[in-house]
Amino acid sequence: MKKTTRRKFLQTTALASVAAAPVFASDNNKAKELFVHHVYFYLKNPGNEADRAKLIEGLEVLSKVPEIRMVHIGTPASTNRSVIERGYAVSWLLFFDNLEQEEIYQKHPIHLKFIEDYSHLWEKVIVYDSVGAKRG
Amino acid sequence: MKKTTRRKFLQTTALASVAAAPVFASDNNKAKELFVHHVYFYLKNPGNEADRAKLIEGLEVLSKVPEIRMVHIGTPASTNRSVIERGYAVSWLLFFDNLEQEEIYQKHPIHLKFIEDYSHLWEKVIVYDSVGAKRG
Repeated sequence: MKKTTRRKFLQTTALASVAAAPVFASDNNKAKELFVHHVYFYLKNPGNEADRAKLIEGLEVLSKVPEIRMVHIGTPASTNRSVIERGYAVSWLLFFDNLEQEEIYQKHPIHLKFIEDYSHLWEKVIVYDSVGAKRG
Repeated sequence: MKKTTRRKFLQTTALASVAAAPVFASDNNKAKELFVHHVYFYLKNPGNEADRAKLIEGLEVLSKVPEIRMVHIGTPASTNRSVIERGYAVSWLLFFDNLEQEEIYQKHPIHLKFIEDYSHLWEKVIVYDSVGAKRG
């Protein structure tokens, strides 16, 4: 194989693996157990965009905790049916490999500092922790 | 390179790409906007394991809707602090590229059939739809 052809082949191989591989899986496409930690933050000043932006700024720092496998920071979508809860200001969704990794995150200095610096902003949080297989 | 060495090299290359690639991203590590649809199902018969298993069976069929980018089917973790909601039976977490894709899912025949066949099992659902960037 010529050098350029070979490089191209490797690139293609690598991309193909990314496309075909389930997220985080290196175990031949088997469904992978994940710990999903989903927190919804309700602001003390609901609708205050400055407070929301400040909270998101804090979460961006918090997302550096190394045990976290995936982070999604969201705000309520425009969808609006009766079953949809829209009162929260920020959705904070994390994936961990397992419960133990989430426990390390809970006690991590970055997390403790986040609570210290930002908890004055929220009125309440609702947390859903769930475990199970990720598909597709 | 010998054939076996070469195969090993390709495998290593492929695994490395999977590990390094952000989920679904093929856009040079830029944060990717995602629509997160998270549904929590509360059974009519809470704690009924047969009903929960049946619902999960239905969700596994539902997960075939092609617009879905990622599926996680979960049950409450063993974590148990005051802010953690644990009354639901099944967590159904989906990623979509955007709102439009989620709307297609809502109206998809597989989804309508799922509601028809399984909605007798649940007492209520709570839905959180959020949009924002996925990091890491």
